[in-house]
Amino acid sequence: MIIVARKGITPDELDHIRERVEALGLRTHISIGETRTIVGCIGDEARLSHVSLMSIPGVDSVHPVMRPYKLAARDFAADRTSRVQVGDRTFGGSACLVAAGPCSVENEGMMKATGHAVVKEGAALLRGGAFKPRTSPYSFDGLKEEGLRILARVRDETGLPVVTEVLDPRDAELIAGYVDMLQIGTRNMQNFSLLREVGQLQRPVLLKRGMSATLKDLLLAAEYVMSKGNMQVVLCERGIRTFGAETRNTFDLAAIPWLKMETHLPVIADPSHAGGRRDLVAPLSFAAVAAGADGLIVEVHPDPETAVSDGDQSLTFGGFAGLMRDLKVFAEAAGRTL
Amino acid sequence: MIIVARKGITPDELDHIRERVEALGLRTHISIGETRTIVGCIGDEARLSHVSLMSIPGVDSVHPVMRPYKLAARDFAADRTSRVQVGDRTFGGSACLVAAGPCSVENEGMMKATGHAVVKEGAALLRGGAFKPRTSPYSFDGLKEEGLRILARVRDETGLPVVTEVLDPRDAELIAGYVDMLQIGTRNMQNFSLLREVGQLQRPVLLKRGMSATLKDLLLAAEYVMSKGNMQVVLCERGIRTFGAETRNTFDLAAIPWLKMETHLPVIADPSHAGGRRDLVAPLSFAAVAAGADGLIVEVHPDPETAVSDGDQSLTFGGFAGLMRDLKVFAEAAGRTL
Amino acid sequence: MIIVARKGITPDELDHIRERVEALGLRTHISIGETRTIVGCIGDEARLSHVSLMSIPGVDSVHPVMRPYKLAARDFAADRTSRVQVGDRTFGGSACLVAAGPCSVENEGMMKATGHAVVKEGAALLRGGAFKPRTSPYSFDGLKEEGLRILARVRDETGLPVVTEVLDPRDAELIAGYVDMLQIGTRNMQNFSLLREVGQLQRPVLLKRGMSATLKDLLLAAEYVMSKGNMQVVLCERGIRTFGAETRNTFDLAAIPWLKMETHLPVIADPSHAGGRRDLVAPLSFAAVAAGADGLIVEVHPDPETAVSDGDQSLTFGGFAGLMRDLKVFAEAAGRTL
Amino acid sequence: MIIVARKGITPDELDHIRERVEALGLRTHISIGETRTIVGCIGDEARLSHVSLMSIPGVDSVHPVMRPYKLAARDFAADRTSRVQVGDRTFGGSACLVAAGPCSVENEGMMKATGHAVVKEGAALLRGGAFKPRTSPYSFDGLKEEGLRILARVRDETGLPVVTEVLDPRDAELIAGYVDMLQIGTRNMQNFSLLREVGQLQRPVLLKRGMSATLKDLLLAAEYVMSKGNMQVVLCERGIRTFGAETRNTFDLAAIPWLKMETHLPVIADPSHAGGRRDLVAPLSFAAVAAGADGLIVEVHPDPETAVSDGDQSLTFGGFAGLMRDLKVFAEAAGRTL
Repeated sequence: MIIVARKGITPDELDHIRERVEALGLRTHISIGETRTIVGCIGDEARLSHVSLMSIPGVDSVHPVMRPYKLAARDFAADRTSRVQVGDRTFGGSACLVAAGPCSVENEGMMKATGHAVVKEGAALLRGGAFKPRTSPYSFDGLKEEGLRILARVRDETGLPVVTEVLDPRDAELIAGYVDMLQIGTRNMQNFSLLREVGQLQRPVLLKRGMSATLKDLLLAAEYVMSKGNMQVVLCERGIRTFGAETRNTFDLAAIPWLKMETHLPVIADPSHAGGRRDLVAPLSFAAVAAGADGLIVEVHPDPETAVSDGDQSLTFGGFAGLMRDLKVFAEAAGRTL
Repeated sequence: MIIVARKGITPDELDHIRERVEALGLRTHISIGETRTIVGCIGDEARLSHVSLMSIPGVDSVHPVMRPYKLAARDFAADRTSRVQVGDRTFGGSACLVAAGPCSVENEGMMKATGHAVVKEGAALLRGGAFKPRTSPYSFDGLKEEGLRILARVRDETGLPVVTEVLDPRDAELIAGYVDMLQIGTRNMQNFSLLREVGQLQRPVLLKRGMSATLKDLLLAAEYVMSKGNMQVVLCERGIRTFGAETRNTFDLAAIPWLKMETHLPVIADPSHAGGRRDLVAPLSFAAVAAGADGLIVEVHPDPETAVSDGDQSLTFGGFAGLMRDLKVFAEAAGRTL
Repeated sequence: MIIVARKGITPDELDHIRERVEALGLRTHISIGETRTIVGCIGDEARLSHVSLMSIPGVDSVHPVMRPYKLAARDFAADRTSRVQVGDRTFGGSACLVAAGPCSVENEGMMKATGHAVVKEGAALLRGGAFKPRTSPYSFDGLKEEGLRILARVRDETGLPVVTEVLDPRDAELIAGYVDMLQIGTRNMQNFSLLREVGQLQRPVLLKRGMSATLKDLLLAAEYVMSKGNMQVVLCERGIRTFGAETRNTFDLAAIPWLKMETHLPVIADPSHAGGRRDLVAPLSFAAVAAGADGLIVEVHPDPETAVSDGDQSLTFGGFAGLMRDLKVFAEAAGRTL
Repeated sequence: MIIVARKGITPDELDHIRERVEALGLRTHISIGETRTIVGCIGDEARLSHVSLMSIPGVDSVHPVMRPYKLAARDFAADRTSRVQVGDRTFGGSACLVAAGPCSVENEGMMKATGHAVVKEGAALLRGGAFKPRTSPYSFDGLKEEGLRILARVRDETGLPVVTEVLDPRDAELIAGYVDMLQIGTRNMQNFSLLREVGQLQRPVLLKRGMSATLKDLLLAAEYVMSKGNMQVVLCERGIRTFGAETRNTFDLAAIPWLKMETHLPVIADPSHAGGRRDLVAPLSFAAVAAGADGLIVEVHPDPETAVSDGDQSLTFGGFAGLMRDLKVFAEAAGRTL
C-alpha cells in the first residue's frame, strides 16, 4: 500500500500516519518530495484493508499494490493453470468444451430431443435451467425439482454431464444431488451466501461474471467459493452492461485473455447472452475461441420461436450443427480440439 | 406490443405472425406501408412475454408499449402516493426522514454512542449492518445475531426504529424479529429468492438500486416483493457504476424525480455510497432533497478513522450535526419538515 | 509517480528503472519489501509523461500522484475561486446565473419573443444555436451568420449577453465578433484544435463536459483553453452516457461539488440535456443549485411542439416562469441570489 | 414512426396528432386498444425528425421504425458489400489488411526502420501520426508537415500506402496531399465540420468509433462523409469507455459482426487501443479476424520503452513478426488471405 500525503502535511500528522500503519504490523518507508510526501507500507497489505486510511488527517490518496485474491491468482497453481473435471470432461486442458441446451427445461421431450441433437454434434455438456431468475415476478421461473429429474434422465441417456443454475442457498444441496456442475448466474455473482454455500459442496462451479462486475470482482467471487474449500471453479464472460444499445450486452472479449494471464482457472464464454441474437452466436464463438477460451456455453432449442425464454438468442439444431462445424477450424487454429 | 415486419415479408409470413398473436388472445391491427409493415397487438401484452416474437420469420423489431410492473406503478395507488410506516415514522408524507448510523455494528458502545448522537440531531431511524456483504471473503462480515441484539437494545434506549440488511433468505425471519425495516442491498436487488422471502414478511423493506440496474429493473424488483403481499417498499438511489472515476459511484440524481413520477412508492437517497467521500455527503444530500427525495440514509461513525468498513464516507458526529443543520433549509424549500 | 516493480525483479532491471527516471531529472527512492519493490519518483512528474514506464522490463504498475492540470487546479487561483465576466454578469460570485433560450435560433421573431420572455423572469443570459451539431447529416444545422445577427439584435433589445456554440475553428473569430460567450459543446470537448482556437480569443468560454469524459478530462480540456491565455472558462455538467435508459443522459450531480473542490473555475449545469424531458428540468435545476452550481443553462421555446430541435426538453415561457419562481427558494437556501 | 398515445387521450388530442403527422405528408393508421391507442405513421419517417412529437399533448412515447442512415445501410450497395481502394490495396475483399506503425512519427529514422520491418512481415499499410490529439496540452502533439513529408518518403521507399490522422478541417487538404488514407480519430467521430471536410476530398477515410458512440452513431458519422460524395469509408472498432478497469478500453467485439450485417462498408479493428497492453494485442487480433474483420490497425515501434506516446501498447518488431505469423492461421480459418 502506498499512501500519498496532502501538500502541507505537518510532521505530527505524518507521525500519526506512520504509527497507525506500524501498529498493524507493517513497516513504513517515507519519501519527502518537493510537492508530495509518500508513505510506502511494507508487509501484509491485507491488514490495512480493515482501516479507513483516507480518514486519517493528511492523507490525499491511497494506492493498493497487491492483488486482493490469493487462491484464484495465477501463481497459486503450481503449473499456473488448473483443470476442472465435470463428469468425464475436463475444462482447462487442450479440449475446447461446448455446453449446449435450452435456457429453460420446459419438458422431458424437448430436453431429450436437445440432448441427442447436441451430443451428436460434439457438445461436451448439456445446459438447461430448472430454477430460473426472471426480471419480472410474472414470468415462468422453471420446473424446479421436476426439471432436475428430467436433466438427470437426459444425462443418463446421452452421457452428457449436466450444468444448471442455483439461485437460492437452500436449494444448492438438492441441485448438487442431481447435476454435475452448479452455475452461479450473473445476478448472483455477488450473492455471498450462495457463493459460500456452493463452496462447501464438492461440485464444480460455473461462475458467470456479473453485469457490472470488474474482472477483479469476478476473481474475488471465485475466491469466496475457493476459500470454502471448493477449488473447481470455471469462469464465464457473458457480456457486461454498457451504453451499447445494439446488442443485449457488451461482450468484453478482452476479459478472456486478461483472465487467462491473471488466474489459473479455466475461462469460457457465453455468446448467446453476450449478443442476445441468434445471428451473432457464431462470430462471437469464433472470436472467444480464437482469444483463448477453454470453452463455450450456448443456447440451443428445438423450436426457438416457442421457447419460454431467450428464444431470440437460441440456435436451432441445424444452427448448432453449423456452429460446431465452422468452429472446428478456429479451435484448431487456437491449438485445441473440439 | 407493436411488431415491425421486415421489408419484403410474404403474405404467408404475415399471416403466421397474426395467428401466433391471436392464438394468445390478443387482437391484431395491420398497417401495410411503402417501406414497412406494422402489426399492432391489442390486449394483454403480458401474454406475449412468454413468446419469442423476434424468432418468428419476417419480424424485424418488437416494441413493448406497456409497463411491465403493475403494483409498483403510480396509478395503482388511489392517491398516486403511498406511505410506509416504520415504527412511528412515515416515509412518503411531508417529513423528510434521515436514517443514520455506521456501516457495520462493531460493538454495543459505538452503537449506543451513535444512536444517542444522531437522535439528538433529528435522525428518524438508526442504520447499522449486522450481516455485511463484502467483496472479499477475507473482510469482516458482521456480528450477525449479536449485532441484531445490539441494534434492538439501542432502539429501546433511543426510540429510533432500526433498519439493517438481509443477505440470505434463511436469515430473513430472524432479522425481522429484531428490527423495524429490512434492507435489500445493491448486490441483492435481483436476488429473487430473497425478494420473495421478504415479500412474505410483514416488515417494511428498503430496496436499494442495483449497481447496473435500470429504473425499470428496480421497479420490477419492488414488484417481486409486492407480488408476495408486502406493499411496504421504500426505494433507494445509491449511485450506479459507470466509467466515472472520481467518485465511488455515479449518483443518478434524476432517478429520484423520475421514480416519483412513475411509482407511488417513497424514494430516498444514499449520499454516502453514491459519492464515497465524506465531503460529498452534504451537497449530495441537499440535492436529493431538493429533487424531491422522501428521505436519506447516511453513514455516521464515532471515529471514522477506525471504522471497520466505509470509514472514508462516514460522517463524524459533528459532521452529522452540521449536515442536519444545513439540510433543514433545503428541506423547507422543498416543502418538507426534517 | 510511484513505480511498483514485478515480483522477482533483478538488481539490473531495478538499476535500469532508476537510471531512466533519474535521466529525466527526478530523484528516486527505493523501498524493497517482502513481496514488492517500490520506486518513488520525486520531482516534476510531468517529465515522465513522455515515457512509457510500463514498457520498462520489471515494471508491474505505475501510479501518478500529481494532478495533470495546473492552471485549472484550485490552488492556482489566489482565493481559490475565479470569476468570469460575461457582458455585465459575473459567473462565480454570489449570483446564480441562468442562461435561457431555444436550442436553435429559428428566426428573429421567436428569438425576440424568447429574449423578452426570459429576461422578464430573471434570466441572466440568452442562449441559442446558430451553428448546430447534429447526429444526422440530414437534420437542420442552423442559420449560421444570419443566426448570429439575430442573436446580436436580440441582445441589443433585451440587454441579455448571448452565448452560442462554436463547432469549427474557422468560425470562431466570426462568432466571437457577434456574441458574448463561446460554447464548446459536448461532442467537441476534446476537439483540441477548437479548444486552442478559442484559447486565443478574448471571449469567455462555456465548456460542456463530453459524454464520456471523466472530470479530469474536462479539467484538461479547460487547461487547453487556459494554456493559450484565455482564463475565462466556465464548466458545465450536462449528463454522461451510461446504461441508464430512462433519461436522455445520466446527470452526474456529484460532478458539481467535486469540481467546486478541485478547480477555481465556475461550474454550471444543463438540466435540459441531462434529463431530456421537460418535466425533469425543474427538479434537476433545484438539485444542481442545492449542490453548489454557479448557474444553469436551460432550453426555452415559444412553442416546443414545433421546435426544430430538442423540443421534448424545452420549457414553454410559462414553464420557465414557474421554474424561476420555484428555483428562488433553493438559490436562497444555497446562499445565492437569483 | 409509431406514436403511442397516453391513456385517456381525448378525441381532440388524437385529431391534433393526426393532423400534425398528415400535414408533413405521411398517412396515419390509428388502432384504439383497451389500454393504449396507437398511431402508425406511414411514409417518409425522416420528415418527422424535425418535429418534437413528444411535445404534442397526449403523446406517451414515440418509436422510430426506420434506420436513420441510407448511404451507409447495407441495402444501398448493389452486392451488399463495398470495397475501398487505398493505394494498391483493397479493404473489403478477401484479403485481411494490416496497417502497422508507431503512434507518432518521431523522426525519419524510426519511421524508415518501422516501414521496412512491417512490410517484410506482410503489413498492407503504414500508420503514423503527424498531428496528434493529446488529452493534456503539455504533451507532444506531433511533427506536423515535417511528419507528413517523412511518411511520404517512407511510402516511396517501402511501397506501403500511408494512413494518418486529421484533427483540424484546415489541415485536411494539406494532409490529403501527402497520404493515401485519412484517419478520423475517436475524439473527432462527431466533429461534423471535419467529417464534411473529408467528405469533399477524394481520399479514403478510416473512421474510428467514438469512445461512447453507439453503432448507429458511427454509421451516421459515416453518412456525413458519404453525403458529401466520398463513399470510400472504412469503419474501425477500437474499444469503448465503460466501468471496466482492467483494460484501457472495452473492446466491443460484437460490433464487428453487427456492422458487417448492417452496412456494406469494410470494418477493421484496433487491438492496440482497445486493450492498451502489448500482451493483449495478439488475442484481440485473432478474435477480430475470427469475427469477420476486414483488417487491423496495430501499433509497432522500434523501441516501445522510449516511444513518445502509447509505448505500453506498441509491439516491437519481433512482436509484430510473431503476431503476423500466428494471425495467418486465424485469417485462413476465416476464409481470408493475410
